[in-house]
Amino acid sequence: MDIKQEPRAVHMLSYGEMPDEAWRRLIDAGNDRAHPMRLMSVATVDDRGHPDSRLLVLRGASRDLGCLWFHTDRRSGKIAQLHRCDRLCAVAYDPESQVQLRLTGSASVHADDQLADRHWQQAALATRYLYRTSLSPGQPLPVPDPRSGAVASDDSTTDGRENFAVIEVRLDDIEWHQLSGRDQRRARLRAASGWSPTPLAP
Amino acid sequence: MDIKQEPRAVHMLSYGEMPDEAWRRLIDAGNDRAHPMRLMSVATVDDRGHPDSRLLVLRGASRDLGCLWFHTDRRSGKIAQLHRCDRLCAVAYDPESQVQLRLTGSASVHADDQLADRHWQQAALATRYLYRTSLSPGQPLPVPDPRSGAVASDDSTTDGRENFAVIEVRLDDIEWHQLSGRDQRRARLRAASGWSPTPLAP
Repeated sequence: MDIKQEPRAVHMLSYGEMPDEAWRRLIDAGNDRAHPMRLMSVATVDDRGHPDSRLLVLRGASRDLGCLWFHTDRRSGKIAQLHRCDRLCAVAYDPESQVQLRLTGSASVHADDQLADRHWQQAALATRYLYRTSLSPGQPLPVPDPRSGAVASDDSTTDGRENFAVIEVRLDDIEWHQLSGRDQRRARLRAASGWSPTPLAP
Repeated sequence: MDIKQEPRAVHMLSYGEMPDEAWRRLIDAGNDRAHPMRLMSVATVDDRGHPDSRLLVLRGASRDLGCLWFHTDRRSGKIAQLHRCDRLCAVAYDPESQVQLRLTGSASVHADDQLADRHWQQAALATRYLYRTSLSPGQPLPVPDPRSGAVASDDSTTDGRENFAVIEVRLDDIEWHQLSGRDQRRARLRAASGWSPTPLAP
């Protein structure tokens, strides 16, 4: 992942530091809208068994529960995909420390329960607005206008709550991969072993 | 994808501009090591039918061929995955213009042919170095040392060429998704229709 023009020397974390540092990054990213790991690519499998992926905003993380949370529209394709195959692989990257996290786990969808209510209450008004559209995300627009501005239609009879869902991911596995110039360090942290690191060849 | 503290107004591209702009970004990202879309998450499906994903550096793109190229170690897990299921979904994001591209297609692996030779010749020496390790990427390290620095072992009998492979992706589909404050614009560009955009609900 040589994205930088010049190899940079960054502080290379030891294996022993990885569990705390991985969870610190995830928890910070869930709380801080400017955190580099807040926007993750989240891969699922579609109904043909093919990979699908998109960016999602991390809405929270808990080391105690071993969980991550994302918000989405319950009419979106990824919800249907997760109902068929609950496996998920998220990737986050911090360009400053050159740390990549690969996060693997099983997802459960919460739409009509207290967990979803709690997340809806905490969601910013600007975010809730996104759920008011009467069109399902990804659906072809009925009357496309190549020059018009807004495309989201607004259904004023609803506040959007009925379209809102929370994806809860129970992590099995965190893969830590850090680069610094020619040096690399990679390890697998498993929930089943209390997130203790197994060093891997980079 | 409300990653920014404050909603920003960015120039919102029209549907008609999307094909040229999508390909311009991909070609630039393949050439420019500092381009925000150079580092992509690339999702595949593993042998259990579960999603897997990791960051890869885009090494080139051609609109004429409808192709993207990535480099990897041919001993890596993703190569085995692509031999079983050649489908792939890559995600790139430009935070400046708030454009997300979702790129879907079929991959072919090139290791011992002229295409691989050509990419190897063009690869920087610092990149070639990564293929000299005698350990397969992702393999558990034989004698982990929690305090040591380098973990990659160096096999001086080889220049790494025999571990090098090129992943060529023939794209079926580019999904363009741009955000600007509350405004969003999303469309699907299909290779089969000359990349002409189908507007989608965001």
